[in-house]
Amino acid sequence: MSNPEIEEQLAPLRAAVQEQGNLVRELKANGAAEIDVKKAVAELKLRKKVLEDKELELTPTVVTFDRSKMEDLLKRRFFYDQSFAIYGGITGQYDFGPMGCALKSNILSLWRQFFSLEEQMLEVDCSILTPEPVLKASGHVDRFADLMVKDVKTGECFRLDHLIKNALEKLSREKNATAELKAECEDICIKLDGMNKQEMADVLTKYQIKSPLTGNDLTEPIEFNLMFATQIGPTGLVKGFLRPETAQGIFVNFKRLLEFNQGKLPFAVAQIGNSFRNEISPRSGLIRVREFTMAEIEHFCDPTQKDHPKFELIAETEMTLYSACNQMDGKSAQKIRIGDAVKSGLVANETLGYYMARIHQFLLTIGIKPECLRFRQHMSNEMAHYACDCWDAECLTSYGWVECVGCADRSAYDLSQHMAATGVRLVAEKRLPAPKTVEVSEIVPNKQTLGKTFKKDAKAITDALAKLSLDDVKSVEQQLNEAKEYTLKTGEGAEFKLTPDTISVKHSTKTVHVEEIIPSVVEPSFGIGRIMYALLEQNFMCRDGDEQRCYFTLPSVVAPLKCSILPLSNNAEFQPYTRQLSSALTKAELSHKVDDSSGSIGRRYARTDEIAIPFGITVDFDTLKEPHTVTLRDRNSMKQVRVDINEVIDVVKDLSTGKMQWSQVLEKYPLFEQQEATTK
Amino acid sequence: MSNPEIEEQLAPLRAAVQEQGNLVRELKANGAAEIDVKKAVAELKLRKKVLEDKELELTPTVVTFDRSKMEDLLKRRFFYDQSFAIYGGITGQYDFGPMGCALKSNILSLWRQFFSLEEQMLEVDCSILTPEPVLKASGHVDRFADLMVKDVKTGECFRLDHLIKNALEKLSREKNATAELKAECEDICIKLDGMNKQEMADVLTKYQIKSPLTGNDLTEPIEFNLMFATQIGPTGLVKGFLRPETAQGIFVNFKRLLEFNQGKLPFAVAQIGNSFRNEISPRSGLIRVREFTMAEIEHFCDPTQKDHPKFELIAETEMTLYSACNQMDGKSAQKIRIGDAVKSGLVANETLGYYMARIHQFLLTIGIKPECLRFRQHMSNEMAHYACDCWDAECLTSYGWVECVGCADRSAYDLSQHMAATGVRLVAEKRLPAPKTVEVSEIVPNKQTLGKTFKKDAKAITDALAKLSLDDVKSVEQQLNEAKEYTLKTGEGAEFKLTPDTISVKHSTKTVHVEEIIPSVVEPSFGIGRIMYALLEQNFMCRDGDEQRCYFTLPSVVAPLKCSILPLSNNAEFQPYTRQLSSALTKAELSHKVDDSSGSIGRRYARTDEIAIPFGITVDFDTLKEPHTVTLRDRNSMKQVRVDINEVIDVVKDLSTGKMQWSQVLEKYPLFEQQEATTK
Repeated sequence: MSNPEIEEQLAPLRAAVQEQGNLVRELKANGAAEIDVKKAVAELKLRKKVLEDKELELTPTVVTFDRSKMEDLLKRRFFYDQSFAIYGGITGQYDFGPMGCALKSNILSLWRQFFSLEEQMLEVDCSILTPEPVLKASGHVDRFADLMVKDVKTGECFRLDHLIKNALEKLSREKNATAELKAECEDICIKLDGMNKQEMADVLTKYQIKSPLTGNDLTEPIEFNLMFATQIGPTGLVKGFLRPETAQGIFVNFKRLLEFNQGKLPFAVAQIGNSFRNEISPRSGLIRVREFTMAEIEHFCDPTQKDHPKFELIAETEMTLYSACNQMDGKSAQKIRIGDAVKSGLVANETLGYYMARIHQFLLTIGIKPECLRFRQHMSNEMAHYACDCWDAECLTSYGWVECVGCADRSAYDLSQHMAATGVRLVAEKRLPAPKTVEVSEIVPNKQTLGKTFKKDAKAITDALAKLSLDDVKSVEQQLNEAKEYTLKTGEGAEFKLTPDTISVKHSTKTVHVEEIIPSVVEPSFGIGRIMYALLEQNFMCRDGDEQRCYFTLPSVVAPLKCSILPLSNNAEFQPYTRQLSSALTKAELSHKVDDSSGSIGRRYARTDEIAIPFGITVDFDTLKEPHTVTLRDRNSMKQVRVDINEVIDVVKDLSTGKMQWSQVLEKYPLFEQQEATTK
Repeated sequence: MSNPEIEEQLAPLRAAVQEQGNLVRELKANGAAEIDVKKAVAELKLRKKVLEDKELELTPTVVTFDRSKMEDLLKRRFFYDQSFAIYGGITGQYDFGPMGCALKSNILSLWRQFFSLEEQMLEVDCSILTPEPVLKASGHVDRFADLMVKDVKTGECFRLDHLIKNALEKLSREKNATAELKAECEDICIKLDGMNKQEMADVLTKYQIKSPLTGNDLTEPIEFNLMFATQIGPTGLVKGFLRPETAQGIFVNFKRLLEFNQGKLPFAVAQIGNSFRNEISPRSGLIRVREFTMAEIEHFCDPTQKDHPKFELIAETEMTLYSACNQMDGKSAQKIRIGDAVKSGLVANETLGYYMARIHQFLLTIGIKPECLRFRQHMSNEMAHYACDCWDAECLTSYGWVECVGCADRSAYDLSQHMAATGVRLVAEKRLPAPKTVEVSEIVPNKQTLGKTFKKDAKAITDALAKLSLDDVKSVEQQLNEAKEYTLKTGEGAEFKLTPDTISVKHSTKTVHVEEIIPSVVEPSFGIGRIMYALLEQNFMCRDGDEQRCYFTLPSVVAPLKCSILPLSNNAEFQPYTRQLSSALTKAELSHKVDDSSGSIGRRYARTDEIAIPFGITVDFDTLKEPHTVTLRDRNSMKQVRVDINEVIDVVKDLSTGKMQWSQVLEKYPLFEQQEATTK
């Protein structure tokens, strides 16, 4: 982090960011026009990007990584691949093959253990198909959209910001481009992020941008909602969407969940499930897809009490935090203990900090490299409309830093929205420190005179009066006192003149012990596909001196299979031992693979390395002799030891569950010296 | 099964079924008109239903069951409930709350263990959104539909068969209904199942059936496809559906999966995931829903070798089979060893029999009662178009026998369909017992003369010739011999006259070692929601003498939580012990619930019984003394023992994983005699 030579190169870039960061602060402080702030922020982001790219370029820890080589392996050994490929495939959709599916399922199972069970969360499993009013209330129907344009002849669609950027970059690379034009184009690209629909439309017109594929004219910009729409039921009248996040299913069940928790705050709800986003142009493999698995937590707590009882347990966790401030100032991310970050106010509260630390621990446990993980704070201008503090766990990949887990304080936004939309009170009761006396005013109808005067309308009147708010009651009282009458309007549009002989206002006091509060929500939200991609990239290795022998160093806890069993040759005498080992591994619930195909042992080991199997047992001629022994091989070091056949299952079990390390195995069992190379 | 009194009452009903079964056989044997066969089958089904209802009514094992009481409990303790209830709810969609979600997740985890791991299946995880051509090939676009009619004014939809049945039943109940009319109505209801669209439309017209809700006219019958449609991507041009079953994702990946299995048959592929069906009128709770989780297995094997290497292990399993034959003859289901059923040909082959036995074992393991489980064979007329033998595992519920797992031999149907639709060869290579010599005929172009004669067209001609089939080549040879010329038509519609100087036919022989085969598929398909529902119903109990104290006897392996911890009172001295136990249970990966609320211990036990917690630990005043002990309680028997606090976690672990039975606990530890009633 503090190599002086590198810092020297970065210094001017840092200064440029800081200068712009200060400008943004100044504009905001002076209440500058929104468009000016947006432009300044866009420039700030660009400068940050230049700095970040340079930092990555100069970082010594990032090894050369050949993405196409890894993708070839993932495809060849069917970790995952494009869905419906025999039908031509669909972009942005992937099928997980046996290895990808097992990896995913192991990650989710650990996640459940690490979060749901450990924290005693309430796990739920809600519907994917969601009726429109729910997503109208959450803001997705109105705001979950990207701008696009269509080729007027072919109907081909383009995401508008990508299209403009590409078109202007192309324009400024042309030979006859003037310096002035180049500057203009650059200026627009910088400001693109902050532009609205009309501004982008103007750019299209000014530069006469056409379809890059056909040269045809383009439509006006269209707001394209990213949700998949369908109809629920046969009438065609109930519009629904595939959920764009799992969170809403939790919010609409808040009342039931609070009740399940016997009315007490705080409590956390977890959900694992698929969500869907109809991306205009999906790309970057698993990182931007149309169908994806999320694991989300909604932690409901008292807005005034965001401390966490287990915070002490994780306070010492050292994490890499990239604060909004440092981003504005062009500084690097910093290593800092989460306890200190909460103490200094950098991280808003203990609950948020607790989850950040737990996310950090979880990601390291599954195999994310600490030097390739950071938590980046959203700057105020990029924060979602509902959030009050938000940190993204970002993993470093060949696509740059990729957001894999979001951790946001969503405040009371969602519950308030659903409450407003349904009229159902999504609140918790909070015991007051001391009972409170409150004044109650209510309208008391004189049933007899009311019935005589209004006959059959009397009931509608009484009902309407009961619905009046405290303020309304005050106004009624005032009018009765002053004008000696009050005109009541009922829902059906009828009007009734009420006089002091038909109604009166009664005052009393009431002792209350509780108050109603809308809980705040802290939401850690995991993108499982992105985490898997980052994990695979960060664990992709090639053997020294043999670039063709690639392997994944996935920790055994998430590795798709825990062990391989390889008979040295197809000698029939090996079979009983192979079978015995396989059924013992099954009994110990250890997933494994027997490879009794005819390849050399070295080639077969290489094949198991490709699918990340951490441990391998070989049955050889010594196995046939008493005491029966086998070799046990470690994928990462390729070292082997000789172990009694009756002991080896327990060793693999202990290694797989992390109860034992390979170094301990090396101490306990004799090294098996025959090199793989000699058996090739 | 053989109570003489009961059999006496059932005898005439059995005879009636048999009579009709014989008629159906006769009609089929004589090649009667399809409509007559259908009518006879409909009558047969009705008679079967009457017999079955009577059998159920007389069966002594079926205890009285109060469905609304169970549903009330499931709702109150949030096992599951209608989705989006605060927005008015959507029929046919359910959200699983903490207890339902944990139960589901435990069932799936055991399923994975029992099938995927134990049988070393390849588990995959494929896309839900499926483009139209895939489901066109599978037959779903054309055939996956129900008939419905709409109210012409309100647009309300009715499933046609349900509507007619209800309308005619109502008609024949009217006071002025003649005996003739009653007989007519009954006749139609019987035949309804076999009627086509036009026949049903005629019934609507004849009886002037109107909307039962409004009395308005109804539309003509409409075929309503049960798949949810949407558009993939922004153009609106790529039509897609939410998958109606998970199976197709496996079939379209067949080539990759075969390759992953190194080209060898047999192999089995598993998938757990959600599927969607837009039911016209969902009902019966979890049994008929719009969104549901399935667990499917596709076992690919050589169509001529359907034996199973592990069949011996399960051959002695005694199962209740209800064969098509017995159904036709009005006989009961029979208990029979699966080995005998395969030997006699009742079950088509070992692979099918193996899976049936494994399904049987799995269902019993999770808690389905053996007397409430049977396997019913599809009769030839109800078999899906693709299946060649099919047995449904049916569970007895208050809705009658409900299909929970289907186990079908789908033969080569699906792979053939996708092969025809895509041109991709979805085949496996099978080594021939001995190499075979085959004759090869091919057309050899004389490149020189061909080039001279046809110039730039020569390449198109050579390409077209290469594509000719063996039969085409024979025809070319014949024409060249007889007419001394052959007219080739290329794809572009051009014609070329070829003479013996431009092409010749060469014959040779080739030795082949393998042949291509399209594998057969055996498919066990689990409806997880239905299984859960049957499981809950069959395990719902009330305490003797206290109808209000209900509980579920779910086996601990699937119970949502394994253990409760209850401090006797809110005495602060109990807290350290409660905490110690809770963290020890977490470390042992045992899900549990601490209930330190203020209710009496009896009431709190009743609450844990309601959510099926099998074991309960109570911390009381004796716990505070040395040696520290706690009580351990068994949900089903309500018996309690006294156990050392340091031992109790291991006991609960062994009980939860089935390593120890409660009876063994009773032998080992002293009974704790204080009755719950005294602490109420």
